[in-house]
Amino acid sequence: MSKHLTKRAEDYSKWYNELIVKADLAENSAVRGCMVIKPYGFAIWENMQKELDRMFKETGHQNAYFPLFVPKSLFEAEEKNAEGFAKECAVVTHYRLQNDPDNEGKLRVDPEAKLEEELVVRPTSEAIIWNTYKGWIQSHRDLPLLVNQWANVVRWEMRTRLFLRTAEFLWQEGHTAHATKAEAIAEAKQMQEVYATFAEEFMAMPVVKGAKSESERFAGADDTLTIEALMQDGKALQAGTSHFLGQNFAKAFDVKYTSKEGKQEYVWATSWGVSTRLIGGLIMTHSDDAGLVLPPKLAPIQVVIVPIYKGEEQLNAISEKVDVIVKELRAKGISVKFDDRDTFRPGAKFAEYELKGVPVRIAMGKRDLENGTVEVARRDTFEKQTVSRDEVASIVANLLEEIQENLYNRALTYRNDHITEVNSFEEFKDVIENKGGFVSAHWDGTIETEDKIKELTKATIRCIPNDAKEEDGECVLTGKPSTKRVLFAKAY
Amino acid sequence: MSKHLTKRAEDYSKWYNELIVKADLAENSAVRGCMVIKPYGFAIWENMQKELDRMFKETGHQNAYFPLFVPKSLFEAEEKNAEGFAKECAVVTHYRLQNDPDNEGKLRVDPEAKLEEELVVRPTSEAIIWNTYKGWIQSHRDLPLLVNQWANVVRWEMRTRLFLRTAEFLWQEGHTAHATKAEAIAEAKQMQEVYATFAEEFMAMPVVKGAKSESERFAGADDTLTIEALMQDGKALQAGTSHFLGQNFAKAFDVKYTSKEGKQEYVWATSWGVSTRLIGGLIMTHSDDAGLVLPPKLAPIQVVIVPIYKGEEQLNAISEKVDVIVKELRAKGISVKFDDRDTFRPGAKFAEYELKGVPVRIAMGKRDLENGTVEVARRDTFEKQTVSRDEVASIVANLLEEIQENLYNRALTYRNDHITEVNSFEEFKDVIENKGGFVSAHWDGTIETEDKIKELTKATIRCIPNDAKEEDGECVLTGKPSTKRVLFAKAY
Repeated sequence: MSKHLTKRAEDYSKWYNELIVKADLAENSAVRGCMVIKPYGFAIWENMQKELDRMFKETGHQNAYFPLFVPKSLFEAEEKNAEGFAKECAVVTHYRLQNDPDNEGKLRVDPEAKLEEELVVRPTSEAIIWNTYKGWIQSHRDLPLLVNQWANVVRWEMRTRLFLRTAEFLWQEGHTAHATKAEAIAEAKQMQEVYATFAEEFMAMPVVKGAKSESERFAGADDTLTIEALMQDGKALQAGTSHFLGQNFAKAFDVKYTSKEGKQEYVWATSWGVSTRLIGGLIMTHSDDAGLVLPPKLAPIQVVIVPIYKGEEQLNAISEKVDVIVKELRAKGISVKFDDRDTFRPGAKFAEYELKGVPVRIAMGKRDLENGTVEVARRDTFEKQTVSRDEVASIVANLLEEIQENLYNRALTYRNDHITEVNSFEEFKDVIENKGGFVSAHWDGTIETEDKIKELTKATIRCIPNDAKEEDGECVLTGKPSTKRVLFAKAY
Repeated sequence: MSKHLTKRAEDYSKWYNELIVKADLAENSAVRGCMVIKPYGFAIWENMQKELDRMFKETGHQNAYFPLFVPKSLFEAEEKNAEGFAKECAVVTHYRLQNDPDNEGKLRVDPEAKLEEELVVRPTSEAIIWNTYKGWIQSHRDLPLLVNQWANVVRWEMRTRLFLRTAEFLWQEGHTAHATKAEAIAEAKQMQEVYATFAEEFMAMPVVKGAKSESERFAGADDTLTIEALMQDGKALQAGTSHFLGQNFAKAFDVKYTSKEGKQEYVWATSWGVSTRLIGGLIMTHSDDAGLVLPPKLAPIQVVIVPIYKGEEQLNAISEKVDVIVKELRAKGISVKFDDRDTFRPGAKFAEYELKGVPVRIAMGKRDLENGTVEVARRDTFEKQTVSRDEVASIVANLLEEIQENLYNRALTYRNDHITEVNSFEEFKDVIENKGGFVSAHWDGTIETEDKIKELTKATIRCIPNDAKEEDGECVLTGKPSTKRVLFAKAY
């Protein structure tokens, strides 16, 4: 494959797709809309999982595993949820293939092996989980129930895109049960905070925390909290959601508990999830025309060391010094790769690691050998410096922190420069069409206005920010009174 | 639910099922043959995953993720593999549900949303992976390709059993590609060793390493290596398999590489897997009539501390001392739970942790408070000792190692006592029927004899042990010449 990468300014979407394939993150598969996550891409997901899993456990959650399949009768039990997912779900109808008598060597579905009840491949697991919780919850002593699941889900999306929207994707879904409404709301908020912390501290991706408008809520939720990020092309990305589900699933599946006072009460619920979509967000927050740029805290390889040598003797001398550096770096918990392959030249290796977004590259050549130095290059700014070998480990450790911080600040500056307050619909359209980013505008609170704005501009309400100020205003479309600005944007 | 657990001697199978439910490991779900893995059971799986994943990475493997679905045309490409799995696979035929006009509030499959090509829910991933590898492998420089996947798979088994045989299960599947036959065979052997090491060192479950007879091989393999364990009821459990796939999948999916000499050659393959079935093996190797017995290296909670007190003042005094012990134990990397719930009495707590197999229980009461002691009880032997608080951390650390070793030795003694050499078919039948365990016998090497023995005794060839001695003998059924003993047993 050609090493040439389309430039972002030429065609952002093409750049994105090419980058994913060239950096060995993922590729389309033989199954419509499903991707293969390649080892390098999966290693990023593993790093994300590790941190998120730790954060979930620190907030009292335990992992469990529920079936992939949802029997149709359970799937349809919570009406709104069923309505929201029925149009795009994979359905298992048979449990056997047989030799096709009309087509030698081929198989066909065995008509005798039709299931009595169809099974939906989970698009989300509220139905199967709440049907299970019915058996787990009797008393207030069984609450709260704080469970998370790492799983694959399937949504039969018509238009798919690597990481951002795939028919099958990997995610985690938390499903909690509480005795009181207040406790469930607090849990939903807590998980929104966990997601925001993860996005900002690990992904270096600033997010706006807010609530979804009614029409953008999760099917079956009373309230959907969201973290919204801004991509480099001015489009927003919903990066994680946390739902307050009220008693909707408890009622659909008849899940009640006996309170301390001996009364039978319906349970209150939340669910919350982030998915491999985050990798799409990570790419579109930091990467550049040279390839991927990864924040050190999630990079599978934080430091790569490339020897520049002629002949085996020089390589041996360099390797000996490199071994010391590798040990020092690993002792600091830094992941490091020494690339001494003799099948590629240093220039090709430099290009490869630039494409793959390795945060720090160390090169050591003949002159370095003599001078006791190495060359240290950072991926985010392309800056290079020559440093003494004695100091390289501590310099690199600091540099990784600096890069993490720089990536966040750079993204934050871009994001803040792309939140534009507007007070007329002309301005609104102008910003959405020409500048991009979030538009902060007054809205009259109706679904009709939201739909109309979407129809006219393709922008949707991304969220009603948690920190929105109370402020008298007029709806940017209808002029009707409004008390808060909400954020609109075109979105992935 | 009643705390009473059926005794093993009464009904081993009932004991197993009850134990799993009462110890909160798993339960049957609303989906036929699929289980819910509850948090405590899943924590054991997480511990297994962590160690196995580390071992896979240490042997050079990387994780990736491939689609859940296998298009029918790929599924049928490798004939033997297809034949082996076609009879028990879940098939997705539609991608949408719609309101059922004949049944208000219910959904039905939308007949308009039929897939052009059916999708098989993966029972194993060779087909989809080798179709992908075709694009990844061109040159000898792309080899070896060493990839593992953690995933769910579905096999529509008719008779299911929690952990041991479920329609959906969790597993890992390694899929490697090599330039030479010798290298692929070495990889298959290496992974058999990894599995054996894991089983023995972490699960404390002795295994016999061997090869499967032709009729017990994985569908599509040229050779299947196995680790076979022995359960307390004398039945064998296939605990992990590692397959040398020859060039079968390379040929079915046309995967060739250019050798150093510039020739086009088919690639050689292996695949290998262990699953949540291991949890069934863990249970049936160590547990007793009082409940689960867990080896410390895989126990979610290694040490539980139970206070025995009257009134809040005493509890506070105990808690203060316990906090110190908790810190000391955690500093040694030991997972510890202090159960200070006031809703249960100490006796109920003791019974709960016995049932859940926590390896070490520490109790502290009023007298301990005065004497500076605690009571330390081990789950495997029920032995108790009173020890000084100053020494408790180091005593417990040693005790955990001792328990791990004791469990292994106990299981090894049982296993070794249940490998019986027989030289006549009368003896064979007697041992299989009355004593159980492995029967080591000569076999003439034919499928016919193997089938006949199975028909007469229900025993199958578990493996041809790696360390089987060359020895002249006569087949236990036919009297034909044989040069090696093989192991027969009834099996799960």
